[in-house]
Amino acid sequence: MIDKKGLSAVSGYQFSGIAIEGKKKNYGLIYTDSEHSLGAAVYTRNDIQAAPVLLSKEMDSVTTTKRAILVNSGNANAFTGKQGVLDARKSIECLSEQLKIKPEECYLASTGVIGQKLPMDKMLGKMPELIKKKDTKQDLAFAQSIMTTDTKPKQASLTFELAGQKISLAGCVKGAGMIQPNMATMLCFVVTDAKIEHTLLKKALVMAVEDTFNSITVDSDTSTNDCVFLLANGYASNMPIEQENSDFSVFVNRLRELLQHLAMELIADAEGITKKITIQVKQARDKEQATAIAYAVANSPLVKTAFFGEQLNWGRILMAVGKAMTGVDSEILDIKINGYEIVKQGEPQTEADYYQQAEQSLKREDVMIEIVLNQGVASKTVVTTDLSIEYIKINANYIS
Amino acid sequence: MIDKKGLSAVSGYQFSGIAIEGKKKNYGLIYTDSEHSLGAAVYTRNDIQAAPVLLSKEMDSVTTTKRAILVNSGNANAFTGKQGVLDARKSIECLSEQLKIKPEECYLASTGVIGQKLPMDKMLGKMPELIKKKDTKQDLAFAQSIMTTDTKPKQASLTFELAGQKISLAGCVKGAGMIQPNMATMLCFVVTDAKIEHTLLKKALVMAVEDTFNSITVDSDTSTNDCVFLLANGYASNMPIEQENSDFSVFVNRLRELLQHLAMELIADAEGITKKITIQVKQARDKEQATAIAYAVANSPLVKTAFFGEQLNWGRILMAVGKAMTGVDSEILDIKINGYEIVKQGEPQTEADYYQQAEQSLKREDVMIEIVLNQGVASKTVVTTDLSIEYIKINANYIS
Repeated sequence: MIDKKGLSAVSGYQFSGIAIEGKKKNYGLIYTDSEHSLGAAVYTRNDIQAAPVLLSKEMDSVTTTKRAILVNSGNANAFTGKQGVLDARKSIECLSEQLKIKPEECYLASTGVIGQKLPMDKMLGKMPELIKKKDTKQDLAFAQSIMTTDTKPKQASLTFELAGQKISLAGCVKGAGMIQPNMATMLCFVVTDAKIEHTLLKKALVMAVEDTFNSITVDSDTSTNDCVFLLANGYASNMPIEQENSDFSVFVNRLRELLQHLAMELIADAEGITKKITIQVKQARDKEQATAIAYAVANSPLVKTAFFGEQLNWGRILMAVGKAMTGVDSEILDIKINGYEIVKQGEPQTEADYYQQAEQSLKREDVMIEIVLNQGVASKTVVTTDLSIEYIKINANYIS
Repeated sequence: MIDKKGLSAVSGYQFSGIAIEGKKKNYGLIYTDSEHSLGAAVYTRNDIQAAPVLLSKEMDSVTTTKRAILVNSGNANAFTGKQGVLDARKSIECLSEQLKIKPEECYLASTGVIGQKLPMDKMLGKMPELIKKKDTKQDLAFAQSIMTTDTKPKQASLTFELAGQKISLAGCVKGAGMIQPNMATMLCFVVTDAKIEHTLLKKALVMAVEDTFNSITVDSDTSTNDCVFLLANGYASNMPIEQENSDFSVFVNRLRELLQHLAMELIADAEGITKKITIQVKQARDKEQATAIAYAVANSPLVKTAFFGEQLNWGRILMAVGKAMTGVDSEILDIKINGYEIVKQGEPQTEADYYQQAEQSLKREDVMIEIVLNQGVASKTVVTTDLSIEYIKINANYIS
């Protein structure tokens, strides 16, 4: 079960969060004193990757030991040319020097506006304060430091046992727009005290991300800065997980549970959201077909605005199912909206009362669309939001 | 040169447009008395195709002679099950009987809400009036009859000569949303008096559609009812075009010119538009890469809202370039916005004055984005719109 506690629920980690400049530019830090802490991460697959993403990947290639994550918000340090890479490297060097660890034991993340140089003088000037303030209880300060258009900090934790030994897992996520993660997501930071071998730690993260952060979309846009980081300091007393055994399965399942909770927190705080919309594509020919259709529906501006308007314009769902061009047979298709069978074996429901009841159900904040293709056994679920006037207002005025 | 005249600019055709019910449900008709009039059409490639699309394709398979096009607006007759197909067939039968032509000489089109049954009794009751009112001068009544969220009728014409013989071409288009045509577009009706062999007529249409209607997008959504129809009654005195000779090239080029004009009219009338945005991807590795990137940028909600807000948030353009995942080399990329070199060889422009001037230029209604990949010689141009608050308002309240 998910706890409402934050990153501080896991022992052996310290956190810090301070302002760099104004309200929108902040610094965050996660640190563990464990010299054997392992780190794993998944990164955006956008062709254009921010400097901190490139640097974190480089650090991955040097060592699996990771003891610190430095984050700045308000500036993505993306597409900042050679200077951006030099700035990222300088940040890691200064951090590691002051923490008395190796540069390759650090991860780096940035979020905010693309294409602007980092205010390096201000940032480096603030670094001693950031480090000095780190404390096992400052998880909220950290969670707040990484927010951009997020309206609230998003953290969660859980505990479980492996052979009688308690393991803690906690995560913190930021993100509200530019969200269609691809093999990664917006910034997410997960810590655990589990003892687990590095390749399994990485594998667990990739597996857990697939059905959670990689199955949500707000606006079909994929960030240049998406990352999920996972640190494991090994402070728990479990027998180290060194094989894909039942302990590993438990770890993956609980990690997935945590990430799913955070992914839903992210959707709940999506820019301008008034509805959460879950799209289940079932009985598809294969996973590719199910996924293509689920995303075509989830990202259709016309589907999303219809739900914002609380209109049962199910024809738009069909339009989007068809535009994926996956070879759907429209004569055997079923569609349910909030449990109402709107289309059955290709024939639309015509009773006006039933239709009206279904439309009434759209006043709920939670909408469920089931699309049953009757062509096979594959399925895919994607969670998205409606498209509201508020989304436009937020994104038409982001820089200023 | 494009004339402001409508379909009536071509001789040998009659037009009609009347109300079926209220202001939103109308009937339109195009008819030619030429017994040798040929018809060609391109249709939506959405998996889910409306009954009139299925019927028109069936009529294509019977004969190349086409003398009439019947259109209704306000109801798409899409996803209306078996009854929808029966209704479409009945419409064609009644029309052909009253016009004293064969059913297979008719095309049928519908536009409007998906998934509602046609008001067949009312429609068939109105058909005699529709036919009685047909006249060579009623092109405006026809153009108005096919409008849904369009704010104005959209028609254009042109004339040219083939070996001293005058040829006329005219077209009429409807569409404002659900626009990312795929091998077809929204409803478009083109008439000509040219004498041209049927396979060349069809080929000319496909060629002309590719760089015009197939290169625009409003909202990434593809209609179930998209069609472009072209009738050629052969009333001009040109030597019949029977080979891919210079006459054919002239015909294709002038047809493309007409369709491009109509496509730009459609963009100009797009739902909620405040800016027209042209995206040119140049020096791409191949056409696929250029096309994927052009559409990724054109359909990015974050790019579109930034332009609505007149913000030079060029980082979002880069984000969208990268999310197409085509293997872009970000270190050799150039980006120009309204002629301002914002990114050159992967390095962003940093001079504040220059940046401010570039941002000022976004107050224009016409925005030009040039993305030079420096990876090859392929290119693609896509024209789109911004994403405005008005778009959401229109589409959140479409049915009611």
